[in-house]
Amino acid sequence: MSQKSAYNVAVVGATGAVGQKILELLQEKDFPINNLKLLSSKRSAGSKQLFKQEEIIVEEAVPESFEGIDIALFSAGGSVSKKLAQEAVKRGAVVIDNTSAFRMDESVPLVVPEVNKTDLQNHQGIIANPNCSTIQMVAALQPLKTAFGLKRIIVSTYQAVSGAGNEACNELANQSKAYLSGEEMEAQLLPVKGDEKHFPIAFNALPQIDVFQENGYTFEEMKMIEETKKIMHAPDLLVAATCVRLPFFTSHAESVYIEVENEDVTVEDIWKELQQAEGIVLQDDPKEQLYPTPLTAEGKQDVFVGRVRKDLDNKQGFHLWIVSDNLLKGAAWNTVQIAQELIQNNWLQR
Amino acid sequence: MSQKSAYNVAVVGATGAVGQKILELLQEKDFPINNLKLLSSKRSAGSKQLFKQEEIIVEEAVPESFEGIDIALFSAGGSVSKKLAQEAVKRGAVVIDNTSAFRMDESVPLVVPEVNKTDLQNHQGIIANPNCSTIQMVAALQPLKTAFGLKRIIVSTYQAVSGAGNEACNELANQSKAYLSGEEMEAQLLPVKGDEKHFPIAFNALPQIDVFQENGYTFEEMKMIEETKKIMHAPDLLVAATCVRLPFFTSHAESVYIEVENEDVTVEDIWKELQQAEGIVLQDDPKEQLYPTPLTAEGKQDVFVGRVRKDLDNKQGFHLWIVSDNLLKGAAWNTVQIAQELIQNNWLQR
Repeated sequence: MSQKSAYNVAVVGATGAVGQKILELLQEKDFPINNLKLLSSKRSAGSKQLFKQEEIIVEEAVPESFEGIDIALFSAGGSVSKKLAQEAVKRGAVVIDNTSAFRMDESVPLVVPEVNKTDLQNHQGIIANPNCSTIQMVAALQPLKTAFGLKRIIVSTYQAVSGAGNEACNELANQSKAYLSGEEMEAQLLPVKGDEKHFPIAFNALPQIDVFQENGYTFEEMKMIEETKKIMHAPDLLVAATCVRLPFFTSHAESVYIEVENEDVTVEDIWKELQQAEGIVLQDDPKEQLYPTPLTAEGKQDVFVGRVRKDLDNKQGFHLWIVSDNLLKGAAWNTVQIAQELIQNNWLQR
Repeated sequence: MSQKSAYNVAVVGATGAVGQKILELLQEKDFPINNLKLLSSKRSAGSKQLFKQEEIIVEEAVPESFEGIDIALFSAGGSVSKKLAQEAVKRGAVVIDNTSAFRMDESVPLVVPEVNKTDLQNHQGIIANPNCSTIQMVAALQPLKTAFGLKRIIVSTYQAVSGAGNEACNELANQSKAYLSGEEMEAQLLPVKGDEKHFPIAFNALPQIDVFQENGYTFEEMKMIEETKKIMHAPDLLVAATCVRLPFFTSHAESVYIEVENEDVTVEDIWKELQQAEGIVLQDDPKEQLYPTPLTAEGKQDVFVGRVRKDLDNKQGFHLWIVSDNLLKGAAWNTVQIAQELIQNNWLQR
């Protein structure tokens, strides 16, 4: 594919929580679009979406949908990606996939542009967008890894329900209203749509995101552990994760403990690196009660970091609080960033 | 004081969130009460409380209130304890104090009965009840410390608003209703009543509980760190904490990473110790999606543990999820347990 001035773009899962944010960003960033195709499951096909004052009818995603498409942005669930991503590639499109379908494939770059954008050069048609909770963590930790070396990460997450889609947001709202009216809460979706049991999320905390693996960890926890090592090119980095779903709509927060390699790092050193880092906003002033929260991060593209503290016992240990909008940097914005990088660096062609 | 069959008991802060739970427990456990005096601030004095079908008028707490009292249970805030606890002791009462006023005093036992009840023997009139988030953690970890040795704790908390009192619960309910109706949320109390700025807690997470200390940690975090070492008699134990307030009413949850001393401990070994431990309920079966949550722990006196996993890199490392009702084991129930132990072991007298 030679360098073009505008591209034929397909958004698969255009009616979903992430798909909607992708459409907003493509408009906001004035992405160079020639023709935009909106695709979805059969169920959502036929609905209309407004894009730059033009009405676009959402079509059912089938292999032929990708004829003539240059860039296909997938966020319609792992099974759709497994079925259609290769079909898109076969027809000449470059796929940026938001699901976990291909992330750990050795031939698929897993990219957070601020961390490893040069991995994009090696794509073979499919590029994977990492898990939402992974993206914000590696974006905040990469500058510290570069400056001080990084030995270890132990993270406990505080994750919003929108990570489980629009239906989960409705469930939280409905359960909250029921609870506040003294009515029984109905749980039909969370913690995991396809799992056997469902529990209320309103005024509660569920220590299960995605299904359990044989080793007792959830898939979400294993995604954070494995994706972090792959994105950071650090197979020996020690990573541990506990992932928890909480009753807020947007933004994931993370309590992160790290151990750096240097022994003489101060909180001020960490601040300095974060202040200079691309895509990171430092919000850390205890005297002013300044720290990021899910509500203040909502709608913003940056990753916010606060509560930076040196461990009281381990001089290589630090604690951080990392917050970002899970639908933006955690999903749609990282996807659009990847597409922008492919174009800017002339990396679309294989 | 010689052994009696029934005691004159004063409850200071009787109208508060913890005071109310203490009254419920004194009834439920048929605590041997001769005369019950309910005390409060001037503002709440005059209100009536039902105790075993008898109406008791709440009186303003003054030094003379403690004449003839054997056991005084304080939960009216640190300033009240600092003003009146010694007055109660002077008049012959043993004080069990729920505030942070005396916890780190060397002469004051800080007690979780399942962990260090024999410390009660050394009291000099005042006994401190630990911080809510500390109690449930040490209760769950002490059996593991005894069996396998304990080197290190890194905890991230998920704390309910009731830890900040009834007013904070009202604030969460009101903000939630406002948000769901599309109205602006009013924040007048959380994260810390006496601090300068207030932020919405509904559909949010606030990484500040209690005021910030000079070292960048909050007082809640320092309480967890210092109290844990004191209760466990482990000055060299490495403890780190990050404390976060969340939008649920009751029960604190904790994501806890520990390192034990033994190298060959398995998840099954941990399960076995927890199953045999007093006051602990193991709820850990990933196949059945069984794990504790704030809602399922609410109203129960036990400490619930689930999500026990061996760290994937460190063979001495384990991850646990610990949940308990912050008003019961975290406050009122631990207080009443201490009073029971004092009586049963004839440790009231100094």
